[in-house]
This record gives sequence, C-alpha cells and structure tokens, in this order.
Amino acid sequence: MRIHLIILLLMTSQAFSQNREITFPDVPGYKTLVCDFHQHTVFSDGSVWPDIRVQEAVLDGLDAISLTEHIEYQPHKSDIPHPDRNRSFEVAKEWAESRDKDLIIVHGTEITRSMPPGHGNAIFIQDVNKIILDDPIEAYREANAQGAFVFWNHPHWPAQKPDGIAELTDMHRQLISEGLLHGIEVVNEGTYSDEALTIAQENNLTIMGTSDIHGLVDWLFDIPGGGHRPVTLVFASERNEASIKEALIEKRTVAWFKNNLIGNERELVPLLNSCLTAESASYLEKTSVAVAKISNKSDATMMLLNESDYTFHQNGHLLEIPAHESVELQVKTFEEKESFQLTFQVLNAITAPGVHPKITLTFESE
Amino acid sequence: MRIHLIILLLMTSQAFSQNREITFPDVPGYKTLVCDFHQHTVFSDGSVWPDIRVQEAVLDGLDAISLTEHIEYQPHKSDIPHPDRNRSFEVAKEWAESRDKDLIIVHGTEITRSMPPGHGNAIFIQDVNKIILDDPIEAYREANAQGAFVFWNHPHWPAQKPDGIAELTDMHRQLISEGLLHGIEVVNEGTYSDEALTIAQENNLTIMGTSDIHGLVDWLFDIPGGGHRPVTLVFASERNEASIKEALIEKRTVAWFKNNLIGNERELVPLLNSCLTAESASYLEKTSVAVAKISNKSDATMMLLNESDYTFHQNGHLLEIPAHESVELQVKTFEEKESFQLTFQVLNAITAPGVHPKITLTFESE
Amino acid sequence: MRIHLIILLLMTSQAFSQNREITFPDVPGYKTLVCDFHQHTVFSDGSVWPDIRVQEAVLDGLDAISLTEHIEYQPHKSDIPHPDRNRSFEVAKEWAESRDKDLIIVHGTEITRSMPPGHGNAIFIQDVNKIILDDPIEAYREANAQGAFVFWNHPHWPAQKPDGIAELTDMHRQLISEGLLHGIEVVNEGTYSDEALTIAQENNLTIMGTSDIHGLVDWLFDIPGGGHRPVTLVFASERNEASIKEALIEKRTVAWFKNNLIGNERELVPLLNSCLTAESASYLEKTSVAVAKISNKSDATMMLLNESDYTFHQNGHLLEIPAHESVELQVKTFEEKESFQLTFQVLNAITAPGVHPKITLTFESE
Amino acid sequence: MRIHLIILLLMTSQAFSQNREITFPDVPGYKTLVCDFHQHTVFSDGSVWPDIRVQEAVLDGLDAISLTEHIEYQPHKSDIPHPDRNRSFEVAKEWAESRDKDLIIVHGTEITRSMPPGHGNAIFIQDVNKIILDDPIEAYREANAQGAFVFWNHPHWPAQKPDGIAELTDMHRQLISEGLLHGIEVVNEGTYSDEALTIAQENNLTIMGTSDIHGLVDWLFDIPGGGHRPVTLVFASERNEASIKEALIEKRTVAWFKNNLIGNERELVPLLNSCLTAESASYLEKTSVAVAKISNKSDATMMLLNESDYTFHQNGHLLEIPAHESVELQVKTFEEKESFQLTFQVLNAITAPGVHPKITLTFESE
Repeated sequence: MRIHLIILLLMTSQAFSQNREITFPDVPGYKTLVCDFHQHTVFSDGSVWPDIRVQEAVLDGLDAISLTEHIEYQPHKSDIPHPDRNRSFEVAKEWAESRDKDLIIVHGTEITRSMPPGHGNAIFIQDVNKIILDDPIEAYREANAQGAFVFWNHPHWPAQKPDGIAELTDMHRQLISEGLLHGIEVVNEGTYSDEALTIAQENNLTIMGTSDIHGLVDWLFDIPGGGHRPVTLVFASERNEASIKEALIEKRTVAWFKNNLIGNERELVPLLNSCLTAESASYLEKTSVAVAKISNKSDATMMLLNESDYTFHQNGHLLEIPAHESVELQVKTFEEKESFQLTFQVLNAITAPGVHPKITLTFESE
Repeated sequence: MRIHLIILLLMTSQAFSQNREITFPDVPGYKTLVCDFHQHTVFSDGSVWPDIRVQEAVLDGLDAISLTEHIEYQPHKSDIPHPDRNRSFEVAKEWAESRDKDLIIVHGTEITRSMPPGHGNAIFIQDVNKIILDDPIEAYREANAQGAFVFWNHPHWPAQKPDGIAELTDMHRQLISEGLLHGIEVVNEGTYSDEALTIAQENNLTIMGTSDIHGLVDWLFDIPGGGHRPVTLVFASERNEASIKEALIEKRTVAWFKNNLIGNERELVPLLNSCLTAESASYLEKTSVAVAKISNKSDATMMLLNESDYTFHQNGHLLEIPAHESVELQVKTFEEKESFQLTFQVLNAITAPGVHPKITLTFESE
Repeated sequence: MRIHLIILLLMTSQAFSQNREITFPDVPGYKTLVCDFHQHTVFSDGSVWPDIRVQEAVLDGLDAISLTEHIEYQPHKSDIPHPDRNRSFEVAKEWAESRDKDLIIVHGTEITRSMPPGHGNAIFIQDVNKIILDDPIEAYREANAQGAFVFWNHPHWPAQKPDGIAELTDMHRQLISEGLLHGIEVVNEGTYSDEALTIAQENNLTIMGTSDIHGLVDWLFDIPGGGHRPVTLVFASERNEASIKEALIEKRTVAWFKNNLIGNERELVPLLNSCLTAESASYLEKTSVAVAKISNKSDATMMLLNESDYTFHQNGHLLEIPAHESVELQVKTFEEKESFQLTFQVLNAITAPGVHPKITLTFESE
Repeated sequence: MRIHLIILLLMTSQAFSQNREITFPDVPGYKTLVCDFHQHTVFSDGSVWPDIRVQEAVLDGLDAISLTEHIEYQPHKSDIPHPDRNRSFEVAKEWAESRDKDLIIVHGTEITRSMPPGHGNAIFIQDVNKIILDDPIEAYREANAQGAFVFWNHPHWPAQKPDGIAELTDMHRQLISEGLLHGIEVVNEGTYSDEALTIAQENNLTIMGTSDIHGLVDWLFDIPGGGHRPVTLVFASERNEASIKEALIEKRTVAWFKNNLIGNERELVPLLNSCLTAESASYLEKTSVAVAKISNKSDATMMLLNESDYTFHQNGHLLEIPAHESVELQVKTFEEKESFQLTFQVLNAITAPGVHPKITLTFESE
C-alpha cells in the first residue's frame, strides 16, 4: 500500500509542475505525435466550450486533436441551433490561432447511428453540413469524397453490443471492401477490446485509441492522481496535418491506454526500442557480476519479464522501469564479457490478444 | 459512451470528496452555509455548460450557487442567441434536479457596466430579461423590485480602477442610500481588498467573497494542489433559499479566501470559537507543565500568536493548527491550576485592515 | 499554491510512520508470522545498540527477530570486550521485556567462515560461547546439539562466490546429509538468488529471507520511500518460539523481498489465496458484462496476468491490485452466468526460477 | 554483506540530500555554519555507535558536531568499560576521516550534575578523563583550563526544574562571573524556553540550540515528514574549528528550531536579510499595481506580517514565503514609483520573548 501511495503522490506533484504532458520518443524515420481524434463540446453533447478542449490538449502535450460532434445527436439544439455544423471546429481553431497555440486541429465529425454501423468518426473533412444524409453508407461516401479518414468508434460498446464483444457485420464488411472505413477504436475512453484489435489486424484497419471526452479530461481520467487520457500515437514524417493523415492511412499507430501500449509489431517494437535504452555496463570489482543500466524515455512504466540467459543479483524476474527513470540491474553473466544481451517480454505492451512483444538490449562492458 | 462517464465520475468524486469539500462548523444559532454567488457559463463569457458548474459545486461541498451571466456582455451570442436570458439558471436547475443534487441554485445575473457603478450582481431575481435596461440605476431598481439582493463586484478591479483601491462614487452612495445596493465583494477570484472591507463596514454592506469563475475551478484555484475557491460563508437559520437571503440582508457572512477568514467581529469571533476547541488538559507528572490539546474543526489552518500569560515548553509564539487536526501544547502555568486560559491573536482572520481578532480558550485540568 | 501541496505530502508521510507494519493474512491452519533472523548490533559489526533493533522490529510489525552477531568477526572488541557472547541477545530481551514489547526474540549467532561453508546462522541456541570452535563442522554440531535451526547465509555473495551463482560444495553436502544444515537464504539484504532457490528445493532446505542489517533499517531499505526490509513469512500453529521453530523445520516459509513472494507451491499458493479474494460480481444492466471485485489483503502489490477464458472491458491483460486495496474488473462472459472463474498468473510470486504460480478466483453472480 | 550496504547508503543519501540538508545563506562577513554540539552514543546513554552520528550529520548537511557523552552517567558500563573517556570522539573522528567526510568533529563532554548547576556541555576540550572531578565547579575549571567553551544544558528541563521556567542560581552566577560558563541552551531537543533567552540576553551568554539526540535523528525529529533537528547556526569567519570557537565566544549564533529562528537582533536581522531578497518589480499595464517578487533562500518558511504603507491585491496581511521558493505579490502603490519599500514583521523569528524582528525590502521598478 505504501509503495503505490508514494508513487501516486509523486506523480501528483509532478502533474502540478506541468508534467502531465504525454511524452514518447520519436522512432527511426518518424516523429511520434500524440493525437486524440474523438472529443465533444457543447456543440453536440459535451459540457465545455471548444476553448477548454484546446487548453486541455495543450496541458496534455497533444500534437493534434479533432472535435467530433455528433451529427445526429444534438441535445443542446434549442440553445445552440447553429445551422452550420462546422462551428465547433471553427471556434476551436480561431481560439487556438489567436493565442498562438501550437496545436493541430483536424476537422472532423461523428456519424452517429444505431448498429450497424454504430458510431463512426470522419476526420480531415471539409464540410460537416454535406455529410448530413439519411443513408449511413451515403454519409460515409460523402465523408470519403471530402478526403476523410474514417474509423469505427467503440465497436465493443455494450449499449450497442450487449456482450461487449466487437464483431463485424455485413455492413462493416461492405464499408471496408469499398474502402470507406479505414480504422477502428481498440481503445475508447475507459475501455479496451482484444476483439477489436483482432478485427483491426484481420482487416487491415488502423488501430485507434481516443478519449471520447464529453466532460472534463481532468476528472474523467484522474489527471491529479497521475492518470492520462487514452490517445493514438501517430508515427508521422512531419508534424503537420498531411503527414498525420498519411500515417493514419498507412496504419502507423499505437494506442496508449492506462499504461498499455497496443499496436502491431511493426510499430510497437521500434517504439519500445526507442523508449528503452541499454546504458552503461561495468563489472563489480573482483566479480563477474555486471551492473547494467536501463533507461526509460517514455511515459509508460515498463513491466519487463526476464527471458534472458542470466539471472539478476538484486531482483526477481519481473522488473518495473518507471516512466522517465533509469534502473540499475546486477546481472550474473558467469564470466566477464565484453558485451551481453538481456531479453525481456514487455507485459504492458500488446501486439495481439495475450501476446506481448519481446525486446533485446545489448550492453557493452566499459 | 455516456454510461461510463457517469460511473467514473462518481468514483472520482468520492476520491476527491474528502480533500476538496469546503468544511466549516456551524455557529450558535445558525448553520454555516458555503456559497458562491458569482459564476459564468457559456451563456455569457464562461467556457462551460451549466452542468459543470453544478458538478464543481457538489465536489466543493457548496450549499448554494448562482450563475450570474453578464447581461451586457455576450461574446457567444452568434452561437447561443437565446432571447431568454434565464436559460443558464434553468439548465443548471433542471440538470441538478434530475440527478437529485442537493444544491441550492439561486437565480441571478450580473449587471455589467463601466465605472460607475461598475459590475454588480443581482441574486434572488425572477426574470433577467426585465432587467435589460439602459440606465444602470433603473436596472438596479428593477432587480430590487424583483426582490433581489444586490452586491458590488470587484470594486478594486484595476481594469476599472487602475490603482486597485476600492472607492465609493456618488452613484454608489446614491444606490446605497436608496437601499438598492446591499453588499460588496471584498474578495473576488484571486484578489482581496482591505479598502473594500472598510467600505463594507462604513456603509453597512454585506461582506462577500466569490470565485467569479469563467473557466474551470480545478485549474484556476489549483484544487489538486490543495487550493480552494473563494466563497461566502453564510450563517443561516435553515439550509434553504429564504434563510440564505435573510442572512445576506442581515450581513451574517464571512469571506473565505486563501486561508484567510474575513468578516465583522460579530460573525468572525463566533465562527473561530466554533472552529477551535480547548480539549483536555493534564499536568506532566511531578511538574507544573500542562499538556493542553487544541482541536481545529475547520478547513482553515489557524495561525495563532500567543498573547497568554504563559509560555510554551515545546513551541515559540506562533502556532499553526492545521485544518481538521489537533495540536498538543505544553503550557508552563507556574503551578498546577484547576483551569487556565490561553489567549491568541488569530492572524489568518481579518476583522479590519491590519486587525486580527483574539480568542481565548479555557482549559479544565483533568 | 505549492504550500498546500507540501503540507499534504508532509501529512501523508507522517501517516506512513504508523503504516510501515508488514502485514500478510493468515493461511488455513496457520498464523502468518513476520520474522527476520539475521541482524547485527554493536556487539559484532553493527552500528546500533540492541534496543534500536527491537524498536525497528516493532515499527515494522515483526513477530520475531534474532540478533546474530558474528562469532569470528569482532571489530569493536577493544571497546566491547565482553567475554560473554550472549550479551546482545540478553540486552535486547531485557530492554523489550521491561517495556512490554510483544516481540519474540530468538537467541542466535552467525558462524562466520570463509567458503566453504561461508557464513551460517544458528538460531534457537542456548549459549554462543560454546559454539566458539575452530572446526566449522564442529561449530555446526555444537549448535545442533543446542537444538539450533541452522541456515546458510547469502550463498550467492560475490565476496565469497565471485560469479554470484549459489553452488553447493562437498562440505555443504556433508552438513546437509548429517542433518546439520536446515535452511538457506534465497534472499539476503538487497539480493535474491534463483540458484539458491533451486538448491533449497533440490535439498529440502527451508527458504529464508533476511535483512542482514548492520546500519539502520530506515536508511538501507528506504522506509520513508515505501520500501520494506526482506523477511521470512513463517506459517506457525501458534505465535510462539516453539511453533516458529517447528514451522522452520517443516519448511513452512515464504520469503518477502521487494514486492516478490518466493516459496514452494505448498506454502505460496495458500498464501496467495488468502491475500486475494473474489468479492461480489454483478452484471451491468442489459449486458453480459459482469463487474467483478477483487480484494488484496496483503502488503504485496499483486501483478496478475490474465489467463482466463474471458477478456476485460476496461483493462488489458496485466492487472495491478495494489496492496490493501480492491479493484473492479468488467468481465465479458459472453452471457449472464451464475458463477464464473478467472485464472491469473501471479508474476510477483516465484515458485521456481522463471515459474510463477497461478490462482483461480470464483465469482458468484448476485 | 557490507559491500552492498555501502552502495545502497550512497544511493539513499543522494535521495535524501535535497530534502533534509539544513541550508541557510551566509551573512555579510561570515559563513553560516550548521552545528549540533549536544549528542550521545553508546559510549554513554545513546543507542548508536558513533558512525551513525557522523552519517546523520552528513545527511543533515551539518558543518560541525560534538559527541558529548555524560561523564557521570554510564548505563552501558558493564559492556563498554572503556577507562578512556575520549573514545567516542576518537571513533567518530577516525570513521569520518577514513571515509573523507567533510565534517568538523569537536571534542566535547557533558558534565552531568543535579541542579545546581544541572547539566553542562564542555566542547573544544583536550581530555575528558581529566574532567572527572567531584566538585562541579572544579570540573568547569578544568574544562576551561583545557580551553573549553561551556554552556548550560536545558535550564528549563522539568526533571530538574519542575515548573519548566529557566532560572539562574547562585552557582550559575558564580560560574558566569568567573568566566567559566559561556552559553545556554534556549533550545534543547523538542523544547524552547523564552526565559532561557532572557537569561542569555541579560548575562551575555551565547544562545545555543541542540538536538541532545540519544536515539535516531530520523525518528525523533520526523525527518521523513519534513522535520529537522534543532541546531545552532554559527556565523564564523572560516569553516574551521578555531573560527567556530571564536564565533561561539563572540556570541555570533542563532538557534534553528521547528521553523523558528531565535537570536539577538545583531545576528538575526542580517540573517533574515540574507534569506529574503527583493527581486524584480514591474507594474501591471495601465495600473499602479506593482508585481513584486520576494525570494527565500533558506530552510525557514517565512511568516511575514505586512506593516507597509501599502496593501496587496492578491493577499491579506499574513504572507507565507515557503523555504527555497519565491512569491509574487501585487502591491498597490497608489501611483507608479521608481522604487518602493515593504516592511514586514517576521513572526517565525524571535529576538526576545514576544518580540519579532522587522525587515524592510526595497524594490526597484523595472
């Protein structure tokens, strides 16, 4: 109890000193951009003016957001009649630009239907008003005609799928085969779906994680207690809208959710290799016990299970490398070696249901 | 995914509740109610829907609030045209009632003029629309005709008074003499004015403290860091709207601001006597050194300066009695006494500029 | 408002000074006693008088300790000549008894030789002086003649085994076959040895974990930061010296080390089953998603890897159940069930090198 | 396993160092040295070997200590017969020097008598053995003959003065008039005496504050909770033993006790002026409200009561400047000024019973 209480308190105090920024290192060839493409304001059923979404995003260190108001669900309509459904985007953009906020705001909307196809977000659109169409497939076609990247929201939502098991319908298969649906949330707000991950992988859909925030990020995701909103890490050539869109189409994403990193091996292993670094190694005098230092340059507390040929002098098999910290291990290498390797299963990373990627760190003896 | 939003908010509010609820004890004859009668939403220049104000108030343990939208300043008008200026109140009330929130929501508005008379809040009104009048004095008359309690907002606001020194104008004198102005903020948002306190006391105005919140209470007042919003403590016969109004008219208030309690002696000394209690006293064996226990039943960390006939064995002259804690003092009473008294100046309480009330605690030896 | 943050943190850490007690639940048929049978004072090469060891033990909630001064290493001899080598035990016992400390103090000593056999602790002895013998095997025989339980200390100590790999020698085999050596430290101070665990299991030795403290427990094991000293959990019929000795001889122990529980399946699985409890389960309305509550009644933060037939709605595969807390899981059981089971690998528990026990929790639907 | 003990202690002391090192700035002409000249080990009635006292001192950032074993009270004598009463000093000195600890260890002892004269510490002595004399005045004479600085310990100790009121006896007057007694503890362990302060000031005795530690500093003074041991701040020309002695004789000291600084105006005001700095001041646009920054370079949380000609826009009268932090004040100066002054009573500083020094800070407008 004491351990976690202390960690919690430390994280809390870090949060105050402006450390709530979500931070992951870049990967070879790409910048790692932190994105949340599913959010609501008073312009549909959210509880805040768009400026709060911009401020939350800046505090959270996001690179890009989208305010995706429901087209079909407008509970505040009597007070905010707005015939122009692009207002949420415009208000946010104007607020951010007039205050020099370095935040990419992507134009988007949520096409909000019963199942099938359920809810879907279209981002990188031009005009929400034109997507107001009766037939959902027509709405997806219009969004695509505007150049949208479209993803299926919370396919595992018990309100639309009472067993919570994400499952493709014929309509989804049609949308995918026509090229109208490109991504799928495996993470939405406080939830994760192994089954959605499988659907993404079997159907070449982009893995998405979003906050779907309606109220306040600070409350829902317990920011003072060290929590974070779920986001999509997007690996983009540049930090701009075009590169983000390209990266989404090419499925270069990892979802970040409650200390879990969820993605395909192609993206997740390079990310882990950028997060975890083998630093110095040196032998304790007159022994063949090496002191090996591992650094973690990410927000994820890495949970590593030892699968090396060696055991440790000061630890069991499960290692915890706290976010943005370093840990020293004493490794029993039988004899002094010029270099040695440690292999770990990364338990807080998920590449498929029940599957956790492995990484190997190579230490050069000093 | 609205379902989970609500579930998680309940959990969060439980987690927060012990820390952030503003708590002061009742005083003889009255309940101590925690009130914030100056707040804004998207219906004027605030950034949240009224439900957030209700949720913040519940988390902060408030008994009563008022949403006081600017009549004359409507920056969101193109999106929220609302010809009916009572909507903010109605939306908040409906939201709170449909969710069984035990919060008194008082109907109010802010009459927003240049100086004089500057800004003024009218609360306990019937219809904002009728107060939309060109002549400010007419507006105050209409508010009063509706039964309003009216108070002058931030008289020390540098935007309207560049030296920050609150000062009556002829128009204020007229409003007071006509009985149209009943209170004055000595505390507004992050500010306090000794001069406003003097104006209150010289003109029999009710002492008010308010948050004037536009954005998020959690951010502006650093709730995660232990901060609190400024409020007016109202000493009311009952916990209802009529009693609060009666108490405000009878000037039974204390402002609570950054660990300071500001009020007239008549209210402040009974409050301090309810907060601070002389508990047990007993003598250390074979000595005339008494162990005296003082309890603090309030949110204020009491800063006490010893003005007793006795000195302490384990402390200097300045004592800190943390909020909701007890402190044991060793008092050197020269000889064993059946009872003895300690007198303190309470430095975090203000009854006039530079004046801090005294309290005397009587300890009975066990 | 950093002031309040600091106050909050200080108050919390003060609260820790009462919360450092090591706490694990009893198991069916036995009391779980917390024991540390390897410690030093100024009477050999430690830096404290025995009363500090007693006070530390009381603060840590220990049931039993032994002060095991080196027979052969006496660096303070010129100042503390004491011909009677039982003084450390006697001083501690007298101090504890005169202050009514409810702590079992077991008489012990450390037979301190070069390898083989290295260092060994003999506890439940009668007179250290008689164990001062040249031949180590004779010393072990004398200790056994006095009724001692004897265990091998830090067999993996690089100062005596430069590769840190615990390994039996012929002398150890002889001691074991003669029944003179009964246990082995798999945990000593800040270290753990997979290889020592294997030796224990292959040779029927009792698994031991000890602090081997010379300086201050608070400093070495970072008590203010939430650390704990390593101890041996002993499963004893009664809370008395005889029952502890019986339990040690019957190998009913688990070592507790840096959030790891290390022991044989026979002891470890019942302990985990006492620590982790399946509480209530109930279905979310109109769904087949069950809310299942798991409680952790121990000091160990349980790291559980899901191996069930079901996936979770709000979590990935790795669950963290903080010490002395409960966690609610949303389990997708496909259909409403009267009862269901969840199976987890407990990664912070070790029953053999690289092997973690499984537990199964059965939930009854309400 | 001594090796690891040392490694871990280094890590631990790093972790602690930023938090617990007692830090006050130098004053004009002198270095501010942190000293604790009243401590015990196992060589009288303390519970630790001298190395722990050295380690505690290094962790606490002390410049100088003295181990002042009771001459007349030797409860461990049967185990530690040591005919040579200088051993405590020698052991500490050798331990510190062999480990390159940058700590001045002053040779001292406690002459331990019933009242009068009670207990007194003699430091800067040559040989304790020669001070073992029946007549207390002879003992003081011998100490002085060795070049000692001698101070009266805890004159307010209820065990020797049941009312806790420090009071001179004829014997003390004789010692003072003969020049044999030079200082007096106004602070001892957890206690402070206004009356001892008066005795110091009326008799030209040096003001002393000491820990009188017997057990562990970490426990007694709640180091993990942010507490500190009482010390004497000594204002010395150089950081060496001779300068410290000179400073003590010249009464250049301040006692540091539970966030109180206690001393004569001559030393205390320069210290406060070194602790508190007027940083930048600049006016808020279009107002005569100045933002003035005050920095606190000390461990003391400064409690300032405003006695300026100006009031503050964002604060009441009592300011708290946390240790090692800066605070920004908004000062209403009526008109823009090139420079202005703020005057405060420093309530956590004591220059006489009930008397707190004032400081004036001058701000230059940018």
